[in-house]
Amino acid sequence: MSQSIAADPNRLLPADPGTRSIARNLLSLVEELPILSPHGHVDAAMIEQDTPFPDPATLLVTPDHYVTRLIHSSGIPLDRLGAAGSGTPGAHGTTPRDTWREFIKAWPLFEGTASGYWFRQEFEHVFHVDISRLDQQPGEATADAIYDELNARLSDPDFRPRRLFRDFNIEVLATTDDPLDDLAAHAALAADPTFSSRVLPTFRPDAYLKFHTPDWAARVELLISAAGDGQSGYAGYIRALENRRQYFVEHGAVSADHGSKTALTLKLSAAQAQELFDKARLGKATAADADVFEAHMMYEMARMSVADGLVMTMHPGVFRNHHTPTFEAFGADMGHDIPVPVSYTEALRPMLEDFGTAHGFHFIPFTIDETVFSREIAPLAGFYPSVFIGAPWWFLDAPDAMLRFRSAVTETAGFSRSSGFIDDTRAFCSIPARHNTSRRIEASFLARLVVEHRVSQERARKIIVDVVDGAPRRAFKL
Amino acid sequence: MSQSIAADPNRLLPADPGTRSIARNLLSLVEELPILSPHGHVDAAMIEQDTPFPDPATLLVTPDHYVTRLIHSSGIPLDRLGAAGSGTPGAHGTTPRDTWREFIKAWPLFEGTASGYWFRQEFEHVFHVDISRLDQQPGEATADAIYDELNARLSDPDFRPRRLFRDFNIEVLATTDDPLDDLAAHAALAADPTFSSRVLPTFRPDAYLKFHTPDWAARVELLISAAGDGQSGYAGYIRALENRRQYFVEHGAVSADHGSKTALTLKLSAAQAQELFDKARLGKATAADADVFEAHMMYEMARMSVADGLVMTMHPGVFRNHHTPTFEAFGADMGHDIPVPVSYTEALRPMLEDFGTAHGFHFIPFTIDETVFSREIAPLAGFYPSVFIGAPWWFLDAPDAMLRFRSAVTETAGFSRSSGFIDDTRAFCSIPARHNTSRRIEASFLARLVVEHRVSQERARKIIVDVVDGAPRRAFKL
Amino acid sequence: MSQSIAADPNRLLPADPGTRSIARNLLSLVEELPILSPHGHVDAAMIEQDTPFPDPATLLVTPDHYVTRLIHSSGIPLDRLGAAGSGTPGAHGTTPRDTWREFIKAWPLFEGTASGYWFRQEFEHVFHVDISRLDQQPGEATADAIYDELNARLSDPDFRPRRLFRDFNIEVLATTDDPLDDLAAHAALAADPTFSSRVLPTFRPDAYLKFHTPDWAARVELLISAAGDGQSGYAGYIRALENRRQYFVEHGAVSADHGSKTALTLKLSAAQAQELFDKARLGKATAADADVFEAHMMYEMARMSVADGLVMTMHPGVFRNHHTPTFEAFGADMGHDIPVPVSYTEALRPMLEDFGTAHGFHFIPFTIDETVFSREIAPLAGFYPSVFIGAPWWFLDAPDAMLRFRSAVTETAGFSRSSGFIDDTRAFCSIPARHNTSRRIEASFLARLVVEHRVSQERARKIIVDVVDGAPRRAFKL
Repeated sequence: MSQSIAADPNRLLPADPGTRSIARNLLSLVEELPILSPHGHVDAAMIEQDTPFPDPATLLVTPDHYVTRLIHSSGIPLDRLGAAGSGTPGAHGTTPRDTWREFIKAWPLFEGTASGYWFRQEFEHVFHVDISRLDQQPGEATADAIYDELNARLSDPDFRPRRLFRDFNIEVLATTDDPLDDLAAHAALAADPTFSSRVLPTFRPDAYLKFHTPDWAARVELLISAAGDGQSGYAGYIRALENRRQYFVEHGAVSADHGSKTALTLKLSAAQAQELFDKARLGKATAADADVFEAHMMYEMARMSVADGLVMTMHPGVFRNHHTPTFEAFGADMGHDIPVPVSYTEALRPMLEDFGTAHGFHFIPFTIDETVFSREIAPLAGFYPSVFIGAPWWFLDAPDAMLRFRSAVTETAGFSRSSGFIDDTRAFCSIPARHNTSRRIEASFLARLVVEHRVSQERARKIIVDVVDGAPRRAFKL
Repeated sequence: MSQSIAADPNRLLPADPGTRSIARNLLSLVEELPILSPHGHVDAAMIEQDTPFPDPATLLVTPDHYVTRLIHSSGIPLDRLGAAGSGTPGAHGTTPRDTWREFIKAWPLFEGTASGYWFRQEFEHVFHVDISRLDQQPGEATADAIYDELNARLSDPDFRPRRLFRDFNIEVLATTDDPLDDLAAHAALAADPTFSSRVLPTFRPDAYLKFHTPDWAARVELLISAAGDGQSGYAGYIRALENRRQYFVEHGAVSADHGSKTALTLKLSAAQAQELFDKARLGKATAADADVFEAHMMYEMARMSVADGLVMTMHPGVFRNHHTPTFEAFGADMGHDIPVPVSYTEALRPMLEDFGTAHGFHFIPFTIDETVFSREIAPLAGFYPSVFIGAPWWFLDAPDAMLRFRSAVTETAGFSRSSGFIDDTRAFCSIPARHNTSRRIEASFLARLVVEHRVSQERARKIIVDVVDGAPRRAFKL
Repeated sequence: MSQSIAADPNRLLPADPGTRSIARNLLSLVEELPILSPHGHVDAAMIEQDTPFPDPATLLVTPDHYVTRLIHSSGIPLDRLGAAGSGTPGAHGTTPRDTWREFIKAWPLFEGTASGYWFRQEFEHVFHVDISRLDQQPGEATADAIYDELNARLSDPDFRPRRLFRDFNIEVLATTDDPLDDLAAHAALAADPTFSSRVLPTFRPDAYLKFHTPDWAARVELLISAAGDGQSGYAGYIRALENRRQYFVEHGAVSADHGSKTALTLKLSAAQAQELFDKARLGKATAADADVFEAHMMYEMARMSVADGLVMTMHPGVFRNHHTPTFEAFGADMGHDIPVPVSYTEALRPMLEDFGTAHGFHFIPFTIDETVFSREIAPLAGFYPSVFIGAPWWFLDAPDAMLRFRSAVTETAGFSRSSGFIDDTRAFCSIPARHNTSRRIEASFLARLVVEHRVSQERARKIIVDVVDGAPRRAFKL
């Protein structure tokens, strides 16, 4: 048996022995349940084509901006980690092994972080590589040894996405897709009799709703001509969005996802919306125009969700690309998206006034501003049948933050209003670690309620199964 | 002895055995102390007339919007729960037994919530009905059986408000009353030699201070003619408020309560205030006018409190009646009052500049925005002799939230600046459960400080008595 | 051995026996390490001249507005605590012994507070006076007895600043100084071969950057004539600030500290800045002008820090002198500085755009608005090499708040991005208690991560040494 802390069966469970023992019992009911992943960023084509994994650095370090950002904060330039304007690792003369060495040198930075925990789990349970030696000697020789071990593992013909998909016991995996994506990989997987899980597309129209997206006008032009049913202008734009959502529904999509700037929703008249839209196409829209139009489109997206049944997810409140020089050198998603304060109560009202009790409408707000958990989200979800409480997301997708989340929402909204866990990851190999973490935290939280005689043990056993398995099926209509 | 978790003597106490044992010891000092309830919504006439309780659904479900909201969130329309435009349960053809069945069907929704915990306590300790069977078989047969048992209990002639009042060991119970209420029930109780407790009115003038209250102008007309000493206009309005406060003082009131929109206070000149007041009476006031006037009236209420000694309580930061269709169908208090961010530091300054150190002035801010506990309320109460820290209120009146509250305020302001617990309830039968919950949490928090050698056991024993019994007497001048 | 809870070796450590034992082990690695105090308010001249301490009240009560504020909140006027317009204790006829009696009478107010905890530690470990008797009999006789014991101790010729400095094992102590201070005491200490520790000045230019400071124009006049190299106006002002910073650098300063109103930074053109500056010198600047200019000067201070290497610390978000009557009677720093909401993400952007990755630039934001820990500060420090996470400060410099802080930031930013502990105190004798508290909390937090198998014991042992000793050296360039 491994000596790694990542192998300990009590990992993440509460210190108190009595509570821990109850948590172990609760965990045993859900630890082996299939994975439901209704929101994430894995590439469907990789699964479909069963693409071999690249080297360890290109797989685990370079594309994970949650990892590169922290190494960057220690003073290592991003191009030493494989980032490049061109997107090609090594463009600046850095080899994957160089990047890996930087990563292992930076290993201590990840102690106590969510990423560090996932890595330990992944190495232990997916790659079967013992990294406990890093606790003693994190030097270059160790880095190289681990790199070589991983490389061997990754080039094993048995170590491929489809095999892991089965090993991970993934029942549903949702991807995130451009509205004009043809969803060919999703269709091929659905038609493949050898592939029995579900890989579902998610409609993500952000780039078409925000005037300031690079090439917004060209994108919209393309959208309208591809799916506007011959209509032009704002009417064609709305029609095209409706049509492409329908296309996604037909390809198995269950949700539409929105990374809006704020939580604001607004109901403009068609004439008002059209005026802003036309202004933007002429390149004359102001920042305020863009905000108003995006808020209006959030209302429109809700209206379409009521009509076509797609679950609407929203995750506002992040200042994207905070450091312009980094954005200009390396593009988006480089680890400098920084949260800002958010508030939902007044912002969502125009939408909830009209659709808050609409039959079948599901709206799931996510947040990285913890202040709204007890103040706004739990009270909203505790009244509106349409509002589900988004699981702790991004920076909050971590053990302590998850416990704070449960403590903040449960006393007001109970367990039934939760979205269930989402992993939101592009790191395929980290999926089991992320879901297992969530299950351990649910067990820990519930075990405390049992010890405090707030929930009976019988009920806790039912609740944990519902929270892990029932909630995502219910909230995301799986 | 009951097998229910609600009967466990360790309920809500910390898991660690050493800490739990100290908590038990501390709890034993306060568990049987009389109940002081300086803020709530029980009907004084019900006590005075010793009105028999209605059926279980009409008593426990329909009027408790904290309960109906959560059932509503699961998709049950409010009229299935007894709500009606007319206020008459059953108006939509739903019988109390139907409502009760919906409630029991929804029972799992309340696991982990404050309401669920109170219900378990109430069933165990007030109604002596064993509901632990709900943990196994929450079906319709169980629902009916519990309904019938409760009904039998409720129609027992010994099971009446006055008898329970004595059984609950309530020493003081404050109600919440309209400024024009004649307080006849309060007077009758005070004059009744067979009733030895105190039932005190609370002056709640919200409807007269907010221009947008339905019938504001008519209410104000009535107020002025009833108590304006013959003066008219703004002067008569102020005079009438002063007079009615005096009437409340003479009937035993100790506090005036304010559900203001924000925490803003403003000192207008009499001429400025009169101008807004006159504009509003003509129906021409804007939303901004209403906000300014309300802020000014908060200042005025403080001024009057300094003069007449009524403790001033304020609980801003709630967006009332968030979902207009629900408001239009069922009226106010239907579970869709949703908190918004609040800030006190600058907002209260005009008032605290003038009255913050005024002799005998007591100001108690409540909040459901947890962010202000450590940031603003504890620092304000740690300087101003007039400011007391309002107990966790509404959505925050729950075990975990109370512990977060104590952790957030104590290190800055100690224990002496707290308002003491308030139950804020209209659910008379839940009063013991609510106070007992608070006492268990105080014991839990203090026990941890003892175990961490931050407070000596001798001092902790004194503190818990002061927090439970001394603080509300001091803050509310009981 | 003392019976005081302050002497217990397990004080502040977690209740769970297994976790406590690991915490004890971790604590043993750092408890005796030298004290690094890179930010505080001790008077360098007192060290240099080895000034005897005054009586207990004048030493421990009167100058500590964190203490007097809480006694004030209980209704005791500030002049009973030694405060006076003139700054002379006793000016209002109150003797130090009177003040001390008020303090001991108020002793129970401090139970559970950070101040109360520090006092117990200080009495036990610095003054060797047993105050556990206060837990039983906090009367006047006890007050007088403790006063006399302390007085005897304080007049012992061995009980002097330099001796304590050595006993406390202080390696580095930073003071806070006016830009025009000649730093003579610092120079004398540096030149003194009998004094082997480092006492460093800190450049604190607030009074020269805020138009509304009393005597701003006169101060600026003096600054320009003293250090403007003959230049006048805005150019002379900037030059003088640069020159005085250089003077501080030459006298050992490692940081410049900024108590800005908000976190806003702005880059004005020299012409724009000059216009505001000239307007202010004519006494015509508005409040908005002052805000803009201060934000611009924060940008300028960052620019200068990049050039001269001084670490830039910032602690915005406090409403100073909230109660004007108290300010007018007693001046600043009387305990009514009250926090307001703060946000960094957008506010710091102009500065971080230009200097966020500048070589050698260190920026340390502090906060007393806890909401920013997980939402903004950890994400910013997890990307920008220049941003370090300021330790919990002021009201948050307390055991529970420190644990909340670690829980909020670590999962996102790990341990490496922390500033290390700062005591920020003018109470010299409390320094060991404050640092020891921090070390115990770090041990408690890490022990939990070890028990939860999130960090290995080997790594935890390295981390705690780095957090206590490495972090402040790294962040403050010690």
